[in-house]
Amino acid sequence: MNEIVRQPNLDAAFGQLSEFWSPRVVAAANGQYVKVAKVKGEFVWHAHADEDEFFLVHRGELTIRYRDRPDVVLREGDFHVVPKGVEHNPCAADECWVVLVEPAQTKHTGETISDMTKPIEQQAAPLG
Amino acid sequence: MNEIVRQPNLDAAFGQLSEFWSPRVVAAANGQYVKVAKVKGEFVWHAHADEDEFFLVHRGELTIRYRDRPDVVLREGDFHVVPKGVEHNPCAADECWVVLVEPAQTKHTGETISDMTKPIEQQAAPLG
Repeated sequence: MNEIVRQPNLDAAFGQLSEFWSPRVVAAANGQYVKVAKVKGEFVWHAHADEDEFFLVHRGELTIRYRDRPDVVLREGDFHVVPKGVEHNPCAADECWVVLVEPAQTKHTGETISDMTKPIEQQAAPLG
Repeated sequence: MNEIVRQPNLDAAFGQLSEFWSPRVVAAANGQYVKVAKVKGEFVWHAHADEDEFFLVHRGELTIRYRDRPDVVLREGDFHVVPKGVEHNPCAADECWVVLVEPAQTKHTGETISDMTKPIEQQAAPLG
């Protein structure tokens, strides 16, 4: 068929984010959510007991701090998987744009509940 | 800890691909593979009975042809999910670099076996 439907775009999705540390779901596939998040400053120490978390930096620089292994610094285009059960804390000195892939049930602050915790309903609300 | 470990990078991964339509696994999380592929020309009509397939165009332009719905054109930063069970055929007039997320067991040509089919062992072999 020749009709063409415009598809979502990463830069456009990031452009609709106004709050730091407030991930938004932009796609769902196989029980996983693809999310975009703008981050700046320090998040909270947390772990996801049963879920790995894939990080891809779209713009800026992200440090993932670990308790038990070397920190990870991600620059544009760098990616990294935080393994399930491993305590970590994402931090960014300056504004950073991050793409995440994680199971739909993943709580972004893991079992840590803080002022920064966003319910999944808020994350899954349509952008724009 | 202060030691820093360099992480994999999308551009670097694409730079190591020399063959079109030969996806390579660059990360694994929650039973999903993140893959990179350089594509050019037309692939093959196929479907994945039980698996959605997430496409993100990193460079260039990709058309995903459908039998039963409008074609999808993805430009840099555009993303799209091909739903499970839906026949599709990715095509690119010029060289295009694509990021894929799909279950580890997904066959990239679905149930269609062709000269273009790459075994998962080949896809999962370390790059570089």
